[in-house]
Amino acid sequence: MEDADGMPPNARGNALQMAQREATRDRLVEGAVRVFTRKGYAACVVADVLKEAHVSRASFYAHFASMQALVAEIADRFAPVWQPHYRELANLPGKTLEQLTGWCARMVRFYRENEAVCVILAQASLLDQEIYGKTSGYQDVLADMIADSEPGLAHLRYDPDARLRIGLVLSQLDRACYYLGVRNWEGDPQVGIATMAAQLHHFLHGELRRGGAAAG
Amino acid sequence: MEDADGMPPNARGNALQMAQREATRDRLVEGAVRVFTRKGYAACVVADVLKEAHVSRASFYAHFASMQALVAEIADRFAPVWQPHYRELANLPGKTLEQLTGWCARMVRFYRENEAVCVILAQASLLDQEIYGKTSGYQDVLADMIADSEPGLAHLRYDPDARLRIGLVLSQLDRACYYLGVRNWEGDPQVGIATMAAQLHHFLHGELRRGGAAAG
Repeated sequence: MEDADGMPPNARGNALQMAQREATRDRLVEGAVRVFTRKGYAACVVADVLKEAHVSRASFYAHFASMQALVAEIADRFAPVWQPHYRELANLPGKTLEQLTGWCARMVRFYRENEAVCVILAQASLLDQEIYGKTSGYQDVLADMIADSEPGLAHLRYDPDARLRIGLVLSQLDRACYYLGVRNWEGDPQVGIATMAAQLHHFLHGELRRGGAAAG
Repeated sequence: MEDADGMPPNARGNALQMAQREATRDRLVEGAVRVFTRKGYAACVVADVLKEAHVSRASFYAHFASMQALVAEIADRFAPVWQPHYRELANLPGKTLEQLTGWCARMVRFYRENEAVCVILAQASLLDQEIYGKTSGYQDVLADMIADSEPGLAHLRYDPDARLRIGLVLSQLDRACYYLGVRNWEGDPQVGIATMAAQLHHFLHGELRRGGAAAG
């Protein structure tokens, strides 16, 4: 027997429970972002998150094994927000200086608009080996996107030296976005954006030359 | 009346007290570096430093108003260790790619050899506005050294746009040294060092062209 919405009554009860469960999880994640932003990630303990989210300790641990697990979830939820920006970089047809300047400007604005989460993830990945591992894993995804975007960059996927080079450059891109978007927003970001774009252009075209030379 | 060592007796007593005071201060700084390295700066409270240094709480506060003040002292003591490296960069006569590669290799090795202090300062300046202000101040000193090293770079001292560019590049140099020296030492650092040196060369010669164009 099915209900009006096409689900058996038990499933509807379960669906309600699941929705409540999800709502609690969301409250924990959103509360954590607020309290980390206010007090700093390093200064927060589980009790701060409970108080901010109005959730019991038992509920917290039903969702997350630890604070790290909660921060890992913040990182995971944020990934689909920033990954399209890197996909856009990968897909820029000629990777011209003009295109890269536009892209860098968007990235700096993106860090600025998502300052709270950017600061939390920067702090957590510096303090926490587990979160660092997660953000490094994301960096690998970005490196692959760029490697796969054109044949002249394919070596960025399989050549270990090229892999280290792009790892370094992506890490520096993150630093530049953070520096311009979060730390020094008062200054004219356009000047810094031009420097970022020039570096990225220099790097990508150097790699395109290497990749072309290897293929030829 | 003077003593055999040429000091009045009171002064000798004072000198002894001062030496003891300095020894306590050294114990606090060295104990803090050890315990921050073991537990992470963010996880440490004053009690951890007292226990590690075998110093009383009263003595701690006779020397330092806060943990931040102690970390600021760690940063100040470390400055004369790393500043000569930047002076060396400033003084490289032609700033050729070969010279810059050698310099970057030495810097990465330097971060590796001073990993404990580098990690503490990276964490503290991300978590702590006051320490960030201090490390930013050091960055200004570096920018000045480089600006003063040759006429073609003099605009790095007074032009606010150029100042932002060199601030960004110094911040990225720090990130690169950290990435290669502390995070990814297992990988072949030479590959990353070549990338760092190419970036630095690209930046400095770009600025030399700007400086030359402005002067000409």
